[in-house]
Amino acid sequence: MTRISYLNNEFLDHEKCLVHIEDRGFQFADSAYEVTLFYNNKLIDSDNHINRLFSSLKKLNINHNFSKKQIYDIQVELLKRNNINNYGYCYINITRGCHNRVLNQPNIKAATINATVSSIEKFDIKKITPITVISSKDIRWLRCDIKSSGLCASSMTKQKANNMGYDDAIMHRNQFVTEATYANVFYVDAHNNLITRPCDNKILCGITRNRIIKIAKENNINIIEKKFKINEIKAAKEVFLTSSTMLIRPVAKIDDKIISKEIGKITKKLLEHYLTEISQ
Amino acid sequence: MTRISYLNNEFLDHEKCLVHIEDRGFQFADSAYEVTLFYNNKLIDSDNHINRLFSSLKKLNINHNFSKKQIYDIQVELLKRNNINNYGYCYINITRGCHNRVLNQPNIKAATINATVSSIEKFDIKKITPITVISSKDIRWLRCDIKSSGLCASSMTKQKANNMGYDDAIMHRNQFVTEATYANVFYVDAHNNLITRPCDNKILCGITRNRIIKIAKENNINIIEKKFKINEIKAAKEVFLTSSTMLIRPVAKIDDKIISKEIGKITKKLLEHYLTEISQ
Repeated sequence: MTRISYLNNEFLDHEKCLVHIEDRGFQFADSAYEVTLFYNNKLIDSDNHINRLFSSLKKLNINHNFSKKQIYDIQVELLKRNNINNYGYCYINITRGCHNRVLNQPNIKAATINATVSSIEKFDIKKITPITVISSKDIRWLRCDIKSSGLCASSMTKQKANNMGYDDAIMHRNQFVTEATYANVFYVDAHNNLITRPCDNKILCGITRNRIIKIAKENNINIIEKKFKINEIKAAKEVFLTSSTMLIRPVAKIDDKIISKEIGKITKKLLEHYLTEISQ
Repeated sequence: MTRISYLNNEFLDHEKCLVHIEDRGFQFADSAYEVTLFYNNKLIDSDNHINRLFSSLKKLNINHNFSKKQIYDIQVELLKRNNINNYGYCYINITRGCHNRVLNQPNIKAATINATVSSIEKFDIKKITPITVISSKDIRWLRCDIKSSGLCASSMTKQKANNMGYDDAIMHRNQFVTEATYANVFYVDAHNNLITRPCDNKILCGITRNRIIKIAKENNINIIEKKFKINEIKAAKEVFLTSSTMLIRPVAKIDDKIISKEIGKITKKLLEHYLTEISQ
């Protein structure tokens, strides 16, 4: 079956989705994107993803005329055309558009919009294996609150972890933990408090992160939003990462320090609640 | 006359230079580029630009099979095909290539190479007007030594300056000056020392910057490479920016502080020597 993707008002053979070399997304990473989970036949937290996409575009002063409904409809139509019935995710990206090469932010009438979908396996809590991470200096820009396509720093950092035999990296600035390369970071302390960094310009305020905080509150888990250091998280009872596509992923090891070989009690409880919510 | 650009072994009508939406350059800013001045019928510092391009690619672990001669020949052929006889510049960009979306750095056999040329006016020292700049926090990533296409931070900062009625921005980290949005920064102090920041991971080590240092040394101007703060440069006798396409550009004003309404003595001397060198 031909893979269908979306580009500027057309559903096309994926191979035919081409943009110009002077598209601002290509020459300047001048674009914002979102990745939304499709689970049990529905887009999860779609409104929040679309709102964040529009917020990123606004922060980048990217003009566009897309309505939230259009963005939603494109994704649903793509899932349908690719015969993804239950489990998958949608990637959607909007750039400032094409323009002869200037460094400032030119006013362009036609933003470039493109989207792809991919299928995934249904999550099985029994099959979730904890991952290993290195700690690594966060070398990204200082506007990580914008979900921009300037992902070279995250890509380099993830590859560095892989080269060292680890799955991912927990990044930090001056020892203070920011994020993993594409996920927010949580830990459970000795008193069973659940801790995560408050949202600021140094992290993307994850939609899954926010849902986990809500689930924790509903389940009387004490949630504390505060900055914390790498050595604090290494002393944690449980550590996990959250993102829209991996949901909750327990961390087994940070550098040489073993956290837990199995998924922790609180991590498991949160994941169970999350899976129940999105499977409804 | 049709504008001709270059893409993956072909010289094409510029409008037909298209890349796939899953090109790593488009989705991850996973690419490096160079801009080389073409002046008086020759590429200026071409070897240094090509060496830096290859260095950036190596730092990004981007595999490619291009020889330095090929890169040079592509640019010369493009200038010829676009009938640019004497004054212009070449933009050349190499991305990791196309791959289904993964965050790490996949091993791809075919890097994407693309190039464009544009004509410029011959420089006239009498017509050079000093520019105005704001000071602005440097929000870029911490690998500015790599000339990557992740230029969103620079683009935002330049637009911010423009919105305030200024031409550009001199950026700083904790008050220490790094760069302008696409140029290195020099100043002349009260004792006629010429000062610029040493190369590190927070700036691109400019090829024009290095040539200016060489010219200063040859002309008995005392050059000091050291870190300096925004308040130091505001107290300077002369301030100028350097880049391959603008050569040397005097700065008239930083925020509200007037530096000099006309090009300074040392700035002018360096620019004259530079123009003599590249016009030969």
